[in-house]
Amino acid sequence: MGKGEDTRSMILDAALAQASEGGFESLTIGTLAARTGLSKSGLFAHFGSREELQIAAIDAAAARFADTVFAPALLAERGLPRLRAIFAHWLRWTDDSGLAYGCPLHAAAIEFDDRPGPVRDHLVGHYERLQRNLERAFALAVDTGELPADADPGQLAFEALGLVFAYYHAARLLRRADAAERARAAFDRLLAAAAPAA
Amino acid sequence: MGKGEDTRSMILDAALAQASEGGFESLTIGTLAARTGLSKSGLFAHFGSREELQIAAIDAAAARFADTVFAPALLAERGLPRLRAIFAHWLRWTDDSGLAYGCPLHAAAIEFDDRPGPVRDHLVGHYERLQRNLERAFALAVDTGELPADADPGQLAFEALGLVFAYYHAARLLRRADAAERARAAFDRLLAAAAPAA
Repeated sequence: MGKGEDTRSMILDAALAQASEGGFESLTIGTLAARTGLSKSGLFAHFGSREELQIAAIDAAAARFADTVFAPALLAERGLPRLRAIFAHWLRWTDDSGLAYGCPLHAAAIEFDDRPGPVRDHLVGHYERLQRNLERAFALAVDTGELPADADPGQLAFEALGLVFAYYHAARLLRRADAAERARAAFDRLLAAAAPAA
Repeated sequence: MGKGEDTRSMILDAALAQASEGGFESLTIGTLAARTGLSKSGLFAHFGSREELQIAAIDAAAARFADTVFAPALLAERGLPRLRAIFAHWLRWTDDSGLAYGCPLHAAAIEFDDRPGPVRDHLVGHYERLQRNLERAFALAVDTGELPADADPGQLAFEALGLVFAYYHAARLLRRADAAERARAAFDRLLAAAAPAA
């Protein structure tokens, strides 16, 4: 990486940390200048506007999510082992990514759901890719015969996403110590309920 | 209701509409003055500070949620009919309450998860009551024999909450036409998977 790319990457790390902590509403050229120690004009040289900065932060978070959750799961065998790997990585992904205050994409999903525009479009793009990748992982478990031929990967992906949201809620708002255990039990139940009759 | 209570109730309606649309971050004495046509000093007479206003809005939303989702479900027989009534009302509650931009409590849960203080405390109070009320509804279905004695109401309530979050996400961010249908199918699967072996 050249120096410019290095700096851009450092700025995006700081932007994600800011969005994790205070939401995208708090992510401005000003808060980012304070956080990085760079000048506002220096930041404007990298991102021409607050909107460009927000889009770059969404895309950086989505790329980091894919690298942390889906990419390493490809090492697990397709079918149930890979599904379990995806879910396990997902529960840990913000911790593994140094995002101590929770998933910035999840925060953005609430903040931007009623704000049409390019930021929302990039966010929807991330969640649609996530849905497709999850569906594909469930479909592979149908191919291996671990899930029955009439299992509905779209429905299972919908439900798995809900379990992660329930986990975020229990862990971050309610500070429940059993949040991850509840989420893992729920995912096991989801797979067991979908399994072919013995 | 006296005139003061009438005005307070009208102000809180406007506060919930504002929080539904722009999140609690957008709920200030200033935006509320613009929305209601009341003066800032008039609003300060009702709510001494922005924090008091936010707390009153959280409590008003929680009361409206209880009135819209749980109270009418008491008319259904305890057990599965009541659980299905709760879930059906829940999916519709923001529409039934005139909150066109989604659940303000859900938005607040993300905004305040890392901000200790009385607003967060009131919000946690709401979600803990919700969890208890849901658990009780599942426990009654164990009493009626519709769910087996070893069903775990805490686990089922955790999962049902996740389904509602998945519904909000699919309906509001992704604008998916099948969001409610997916959520209902998921709730049916949850109850069927928990049912006693035939």
